[in-house]
Amino acid sequence: MRLTNYSDYALRTLMYLAVMPDATKLATISEIADSYQISKSHLTKVIHQLAQLGFIESVRGKNGGIRLGRPAEQINLGDVVRQTEPDFDVVPCFEVMNKTADAGQKERIGAPCAIQPACRLKRIFREATIAFIAVMDGYTLADIVQNEQMLWELLK
Amino acid sequence: MRLTNYSDYALRTLMYLAVMPDATKLATISEIADSYQISKSHLTKVIHQLAQLGFIESVRGKNGGIRLGRPAEQINLGDVVRQTEPDFDVVPCFEVMNKTADAGQKERIGAPCAIQPACRLKRIFREATIAFIAVMDGYTLADIVQNEQMLWELLK
Repeated sequence: MRLTNYSDYALRTLMYLAVMPDATKLATISEIADSYQISKSHLTKVIHQLAQLGFIESVRGKNGGIRLGRPAEQINLGDVVRQTEPDFDVVPCFEVMNKTADAGQKERIGAPCAIQPACRLKRIFREATIAFIAVMDGYTLADIVQNEQMLWELLK
Repeated sequence: MRLTNYSDYALRTLMYLAVMPDATKLATISEIADSYQISKSHLTKVIHQLAQLGFIESVRGKNGGIRLGRPAEQINLGDVVRQTEPDFDVVPCFEVMNKTADAGQKERIGAPCAIQPACRLKRIFREATIAFIAVMDGYTLADIVQNEQMLWELLK
């Protein structure tokens, strides 16, 4: 049971920005991509969306970069996941797709599920997903970066 | 947020066997693969494991096939998912892998996460996953095939 790389990169970006020691400093996409050893092009798309959603703030110009759009205490983890996951289909009822590593990109690999019109498993998956997100709703970004110095040691 | 195709195929196989109108009849892998338009070779692996776990019973010979290993009321959906999912890592902390469509097969696509040793997000994901599975634990196969005639119309 996996979240997409897209949500994973979003959460890691927010953690990076929350633990940067100097609150006035701006981070660059390259720094974050290098720290996590992840694709800069994938990360760029994620960061663009995070800025649109107001989770981060993007400052243009020669010394530009990104920082948190609001205090970590005000960034709810359930909200982040709800807005970065493309869907919450636990299984792909309508279109059997294979999500590639590339954030958001999909590849069609099969037929819709034959029993989709009468399937009662969907409701249970929906109920289970709501329970999953409800747990995430109980935490903010601040809760997971209390050990900020230790995290920064691993990232810098 | 997705379960693997492996768990998806396992649940669909169990539903197929539970709604077959004649309880003494055996189903073949080909029939199930054809009904759902899914790969017979992937399904064969899934069914082999379901038999090992006792969820289904395999009868050898010319007129052989498979049937449920115990009544649908005794097949808990949480148990099925717990045993068919390769892991419950919501994000891949240690090895960034891309699960392909082929059940269980993985492809390495990245480095382990830099903050893994100090990350507190893992605990929250674990708590959320437990909440997800707890919902599944509340249901059996019998609960999702009460509309068996309607399901069989879509499968036969």
